[in-house]
Amino acid sequence: MSTEHLRGRFQKDTDRVAARYIASIPFDQRLYRQDIAGSIAHARMLGRQGIIPEGEAEAIISALAEIREEIDQGQFHFKVELEDIHMNIEARLIEKIGDVGGKLHTARSRNDQVALDLRLFCKEAIGETVRGLKGLQAALLDVAEANIDVIMPGYTHLQRAQPVLLSHHLLAYFEMLQRDVLRFRDCLARTDVMPLGSGALAGVPYPIDRDFVAQQLGFSRISQNSIDAVSDRDFVIEYQAAASMAMMHLSRLAEELVLWSTEEFGYVDINDSFASASSIMPQKKNPDVAELARGKTGRVYGHLLGLLSGMKGLPLSYNRDLQEDKEGLFDTVDTLHASLEAFTGMVRTLRVNARRAGQAAEGGYLLATDVADYLVRKGLPFRQAHSVVGRLVAYAAEKKRALSHLGLEEYRRFSDLFEADVLQMTAGASVAARSVPGGTAPDQVRAQVARARRAVNDE
Amino acid sequence: MSTEHLRGRFQKDTDRVAARYIASIPFDQRLYRQDIAGSIAHARMLGRQGIIPEGEAEAIISALAEIREEIDQGQFHFKVELEDIHMNIEARLIEKIGDVGGKLHTARSRNDQVALDLRLFCKEAIGETVRGLKGLQAALLDVAEANIDVIMPGYTHLQRAQPVLLSHHLLAYFEMLQRDVLRFRDCLARTDVMPLGSGALAGVPYPIDRDFVAQQLGFSRISQNSIDAVSDRDFVIEYQAAASMAMMHLSRLAEELVLWSTEEFGYVDINDSFASASSIMPQKKNPDVAELARGKTGRVYGHLLGLLSGMKGLPLSYNRDLQEDKEGLFDTVDTLHASLEAFTGMVRTLRVNARRAGQAAEGGYLLATDVADYLVRKGLPFRQAHSVVGRLVAYAAEKKRALSHLGLEEYRRFSDLFEADVLQMTAGASVAARSVPGGTAPDQVRAQVARARRAVNDE
Amino acid sequence: MSTEHLRGRFQKDTDRVAARYIASIPFDQRLYRQDIAGSIAHARMLGRQGIIPEGEAEAIISALAEIREEIDQGQFHFKVELEDIHMNIEARLIEKIGDVGGKLHTARSRNDQVALDLRLFCKEAIGETVRGLKGLQAALLDVAEANIDVIMPGYTHLQRAQPVLLSHHLLAYFEMLQRDVLRFRDCLARTDVMPLGSGALAGVPYPIDRDFVAQQLGFSRISQNSIDAVSDRDFVIEYQAAASMAMMHLSRLAEELVLWSTEEFGYVDINDSFASASSIMPQKKNPDVAELARGKTGRVYGHLLGLLSGMKGLPLSYNRDLQEDKEGLFDTVDTLHASLEAFTGMVRTLRVNARRAGQAAEGGYLLATDVADYLVRKGLPFRQAHSVVGRLVAYAAEKKRALSHLGLEEYRRFSDLFEADVLQMTAGASVAARSVPGGTAPDQVRAQVARARRAVNDE
Amino acid sequence: MSTEHLRGRFQKDTDRVAARYIASIPFDQRLYRQDIAGSIAHARMLGRQGIIPEGEAEAIISALAEIREEIDQGQFHFKVELEDIHMNIEARLIEKIGDVGGKLHTARSRNDQVALDLRLFCKEAIGETVRGLKGLQAALLDVAEANIDVIMPGYTHLQRAQPVLLSHHLLAYFEMLQRDVLRFRDCLARTDVMPLGSGALAGVPYPIDRDFVAQQLGFSRISQNSIDAVSDRDFVIEYQAAASMAMMHLSRLAEELVLWSTEEFGYVDINDSFASASSIMPQKKNPDVAELARGKTGRVYGHLLGLLSGMKGLPLSYNRDLQEDKEGLFDTVDTLHASLEAFTGMVRTLRVNARRAGQAAEGGYLLATDVADYLVRKGLPFRQAHSVVGRLVAYAAEKKRALSHLGLEEYRRFSDLFEADVLQMTAGASVAARSVPGGTAPDQVRAQVARARRAVNDE
Repeated sequence: MSTEHLRGRFQKDTDRVAARYIASIPFDQRLYRQDIAGSIAHARMLGRQGIIPEGEAEAIISALAEIREEIDQGQFHFKVELEDIHMNIEARLIEKIGDVGGKLHTARSRNDQVALDLRLFCKEAIGETVRGLKGLQAALLDVAEANIDVIMPGYTHLQRAQPVLLSHHLLAYFEMLQRDVLRFRDCLARTDVMPLGSGALAGVPYPIDRDFVAQQLGFSRISQNSIDAVSDRDFVIEYQAAASMAMMHLSRLAEELVLWSTEEFGYVDINDSFASASSIMPQKKNPDVAELARGKTGRVYGHLLGLLSGMKGLPLSYNRDLQEDKEGLFDTVDTLHASLEAFTGMVRTLRVNARRAGQAAEGGYLLATDVADYLVRKGLPFRQAHSVVGRLVAYAAEKKRALSHLGLEEYRRFSDLFEADVLQMTAGASVAARSVPGGTAPDQVRAQVARARRAVNDE
Repeated sequence: MSTEHLRGRFQKDTDRVAARYIASIPFDQRLYRQDIAGSIAHARMLGRQGIIPEGEAEAIISALAEIREEIDQGQFHFKVELEDIHMNIEARLIEKIGDVGGKLHTARSRNDQVALDLRLFCKEAIGETVRGLKGLQAALLDVAEANIDVIMPGYTHLQRAQPVLLSHHLLAYFEMLQRDVLRFRDCLARTDVMPLGSGALAGVPYPIDRDFVAQQLGFSRISQNSIDAVSDRDFVIEYQAAASMAMMHLSRLAEELVLWSTEEFGYVDINDSFASASSIMPQKKNPDVAELARGKTGRVYGHLLGLLSGMKGLPLSYNRDLQEDKEGLFDTVDTLHASLEAFTGMVRTLRVNARRAGQAAEGGYLLATDVADYLVRKGLPFRQAHSVVGRLVAYAAEKKRALSHLGLEEYRRFSDLFEADVLQMTAGASVAARSVPGGTAPDQVRAQVARARRAVNDE
Repeated sequence: MSTEHLRGRFQKDTDRVAARYIASIPFDQRLYRQDIAGSIAHARMLGRQGIIPEGEAEAIISALAEIREEIDQGQFHFKVELEDIHMNIEARLIEKIGDVGGKLHTARSRNDQVALDLRLFCKEAIGETVRGLKGLQAALLDVAEANIDVIMPGYTHLQRAQPVLLSHHLLAYFEMLQRDVLRFRDCLARTDVMPLGSGALAGVPYPIDRDFVAQQLGFSRISQNSIDAVSDRDFVIEYQAAASMAMMHLSRLAEELVLWSTEEFGYVDINDSFASASSIMPQKKNPDVAELARGKTGRVYGHLLGLLSGMKGLPLSYNRDLQEDKEGLFDTVDTLHASLEAFTGMVRTLRVNARRAGQAAEGGYLLATDVADYLVRKGLPFRQAHSVVGRLVAYAAEKKRALSHLGLEEYRRFSDLFEADVLQMTAGASVAARSVPGGTAPDQVRAQVARARRAVNDE
Repeated sequence: MSTEHLRGRFQKDTDRVAARYIASIPFDQRLYRQDIAGSIAHARMLGRQGIIPEGEAEAIISALAEIREEIDQGQFHFKVELEDIHMNIEARLIEKIGDVGGKLHTARSRNDQVALDLRLFCKEAIGETVRGLKGLQAALLDVAEANIDVIMPGYTHLQRAQPVLLSHHLLAYFEMLQRDVLRFRDCLARTDVMPLGSGALAGVPYPIDRDFVAQQLGFSRISQNSIDAVSDRDFVIEYQAAASMAMMHLSRLAEELVLWSTEEFGYVDINDSFASASSIMPQKKNPDVAELARGKTGRVYGHLLGLLSGMKGLPLSYNRDLQEDKEGLFDTVDTLHASLEAFTGMVRTLRVNARRAGQAAEGGYLLATDVADYLVRKGLPFRQAHSVVGRLVAYAAEKKRALSHLGLEEYRRFSDLFEADVLQMTAGASVAARSVPGGTAPDQVRAQVARARRAVNDE
């Protein structure tokens, strides 16, 4: 059997090269469960509405369930000449139950059928994505809690700026991932729309019950415009945009793990089981998972831009260009899920080198802002205090000494507001002082961890 | 005055080339209203909390209001050597009220300040974007209602497929824009977060009241992690992603208006006031607004990619790379708003050529699906009906005759299920038959117009 | 056997999830021929230079040839735990000939090895790409020659502008593809550089002969900086940039074939064997190959942007992010080659509807520019002539008459420079008059076809 | 004066919103010199060929020169209602010399005119780009020479791998920039094509001399197909693709300068004049130029994507979408040139901390590969040597001792091939041993510097 039956008015078979070019079965076979679920709901509705005899509907449904089993078991032979998953399954259906199988496509088109399949796929993907994000959030919270009081240098411009809690720093990633969770959920609301009944583009001339089909398949709403329903891929693009942002977040975490596991920073040790060895340099332990995720971020961006470019300037309604929606989406979903899974393991097994992080936070000039704030509290306008401390730091730097190694008389050369208590400053005190909501003080961070735990556990 | 006061420990002025390279004042001056509003709220809070004397807070607030007036009136001289809008305003403040002005920056950093300014800007932009989208929706509904029963060919693959109502086709764009409205509103929820109090990255060691500042500035929430708050530009990317989809929708409408106003299609006439003339061919009327919007879609995509790429792999917290968030955002906002405004006028003045559209829908083979459905209703399985009609169309095409010009006996050569009523088929009947929710039947489309009106008017 | 031997200092095996994440063998096995060719050349050089005994080099070379045969025959079992194609082959080598196999990696690293493999792959790909481009050029020339004198409307802004030869229009695509050919050849010059000998990053401490290896493998030059050689993927990006432009050209041709095969334009008929049928509308013949190529253009853009994003901000030298270079490249190469092949068949079998094209070029106002030029030749400044004809066209349009249906007295109402000969204007005369180099006159187009033939046949 | 004269058949003025949307004069005024140069060459040719009287050509040319002077002096008033630079200049020309000015547009269209202007602009831009690239190359060579023997750790995966010369590392950037130079030169060859004479799309019906115009304007060739000539923007895209790669190279150098100037690495000190201060942390010196260039890389990528997307699927010939080619190009050119200029200054003033770089290269396990190669030279197959050294490093790491601090007996626990000379290994010896072409040995690097100098100076 071939698509011959589709080609009624055509006088020639598809060119072999063209057939291969056009066929989507090599990748859309991944949608077989969604396709069969949609067909079963559609057949049930056709029978219930009396559009086809109920008995025939039952026969179709049983055969479809068998076909699903065949594919599950790897016993189904997909044929390129049948182009896509829809025709492969329909052809097998007709093979199994004869002409009655040809009634399944009543009141339906491949245009609304593929829109349905893809929406079902995206809904499931979003569920898994959110679970993956929460898994990584939980791992970050575990590491934050286990190292709740570890101090490290906070950076701006990759220069040491002020001491922060490492747990506070990790919670920044919790916040990013939390926005991702919310974005995917917003995306779900626009994905959760049942398009079947739109036909090729104009709706169908049969007394169908779209709400019944929606309810069977777990959709909250039905689409409101048949032309839009077969032309729309916004939900795919929106998934890809949300995925791009999530990968961007991972790429930032990746960058920091790469940095922190260098000999120069040395704040963390990536577990051997998430690192790889060199083919030539036996001493190397390379943070490959982090590097790859950073690289794969570009790939996910590329899929987003590919589809945006592909949709640009397309007239309504369905055009074959839309077939290009799938491979990029599948790869985006797979890449994001694999990255989340690998990161969850890598983060969970991360070893923090509290000593090195703490030492780095004590030395040098990280308390300079605190010194300026000290002067402000003594009444100096901030801008002048900033200027005084700037000169003080320049002096210390020239002497190659840390601020903590200066004596009071040296401080007082720059302002007589300095008193003995300026020598008591420590990274710990600096951190503790920043006890505003969202700040790095231990009490604030503990409260944030608790809030974050609730958010992760909240369905 | 220069940034000298900032460069306490530096021994050299900024290189002239580097200063120009680094300065953001040529574009971030656009944020002066947001910057001053934020500073006023911050000063008021500092006074209220006793961090600075209330009287000094009042002096700062009055001077800031004067500075805003100076900029409004074009009497403010922006200096490149002061780098950015923040330092330009602070320097003027100190110029006006002396050292007290230097207290404004207490418990604040440019890092949280610029995050605040940009969030205020985005919140306002989203409001205007939604108004622009609704304006175009209203124009589409007007044209749909004025031409509610006009029939045209519906297209798939740009081939005539089935008759549809032109109003139904226009409503497809209403749906797209409605998704855009919802997406921008979702984006607003994540933008509406007040970052001030995050300081440079770690929070601030002063008893500030972040909620008061949020309330003064109309924010619903405050940020929960200071490191994230100064590192995050998700809200900008999310605006750009939503804008990319909105422009993509406009590009599709643009493509159709370009097509429909060709001599070949001829379904609409773009008003002279939205078209342009040729420098060499006097007969030309070019759909320039539509073409440009199609072209500008790429530009908006580019800004999205630019920022996504720019954020990839950045370690926390603030890095100067983030300064590149603004120009692309500003251009995205301006391009989208200008495009929506131009389209609203162009659509509102569109003249529909109902006669040509109707003729195109009657001729040829657009009713072939209806003929197949006719056979299905007579009991033939859809797939066989499809095959019969395929041969019928091939026969007619070879004779170069429309289906409506075939006689009953010719129909019956292909199936004896055909009876005299098959000759009664019209585009109007075809359209009317598709009376499912979301279908192209006039009753359905009227209901959709009513629903759409409510959505547009709904705040 | 596992990568155990690589993990000397590691205490743990790679995590299962991480191993799958890191492994490149699922896609880089495609490089086995290049990898083995490189290893053979390397082994031969090691023996020749006395770095390993010549007999051992011979044993390695023989075993490698056998391994290639095993893979050719599908008898090789690739193992994910061996990560990549390099380790899979080396492990098999050692399995076959024992410890001697462990000498192959002397004076080499996977970093320079993979750079070599990829450069060999790209060189071959470019050769095939150029052949594909020339194949399509030849098909375009065939259609142009077969329809050398067919007149059609030339368009600007998709509005009919001036008559042109369809052959001239097709030759525009020849020019685009010719630039593509040259761009790929320029890219080849920068790809044709032999990186082996760069080691991990610093060069190798063995008396190797890099020029010998280059000559064995058919490279023109060797790389000049070992750090650059293992960090550089410019040649991949440059291929992808050239491919993006080539796909953009195909997308424009695709757009025109879609337009021209609509009922509205009707200038060409795509052969049934390159079109597809509708699952619901029996009358449809859809230009799927053209649509898909248009859609796939976005995909190729995406791969370009993905790699550009991925390379942004990477420190030297090799980082694992670079592994992401391959899948996008492979898909780009495959997509471009498949598109060129499909287009070559589609173009070659295209049927031109000369009558419809000619009629469209005669009617309406396409000769308006010629009328303006007529007045210029009578002495009127062009800008005034343009204005006169503008009014003339407005008059005719209001009367709904073509220019050719106006009488001389009507012409003379707008300028008394008009004389009887203005009524003799035809599309054919218009075309013939544009006999400047590059113009649409038949003599010029014939000359261009001849020139183009020579370019295609020229190696 | 308005474009009234262009709107002969139109009954309405352009809508105010639409006019602003369509106008290109806000940005294309930048092309005035190119536009006037093209018009002068065109006018001279028209006179020379007798298409207009020579005296009139002279009058036009003189007036155009005056207009250029007016614009140079800032005395020209650009009008939005005249849309673009072409009409602004032509209108002023007619204002100055009356109807004769209306003859300039004979045998020309804005379509070929703007193609000419843009090609002239790109040719000049490429010249400046190449000069900018060479400037940075020269600065890199200066720093390399001044620090020719400084040893630093070479990195893979950002892990210390093997000692290299810092000069060798900097020369890697020379290589990248050299490829950029060659790519821009290849791009120049395809840009250097004179399009005038293509008219609106079909050529012109006048006896023009295209070669004369080309020679006047310094072009090597004329375009060969008029339809292609007005539709083609490949040269813009190709510039943008080359610029994207160049910016990517700068982003990598930027990343390294950011890393190397951290407290953790400390290999270089960026001159104060290329760094900036913090508004809150007085001790900070931020590598803003490097960070911004890294961020601007995304922006340049965005422009490339924008135009690629914009061109996708455009039918021939000219469409108004093409107007979107300019702003992205201008910004790309400006961004690249500014970045090159800023980097040249920053690199030239870089201070290298030879001591810290050298210490980092000595310690730890950077000589492990050398130890493995030592064993290979004693006859052990590389793969086994690698394994032995892996265990040796694991032993040393557990003892927290560098390889250089192990005693011979400890070495011999892992292989009895070790002898006393294994203790003599140094970073200097390691570097010197890599004396293959392209390797990091001092003699090789000196030779490369000499070769590079010649390439920079070579025109």
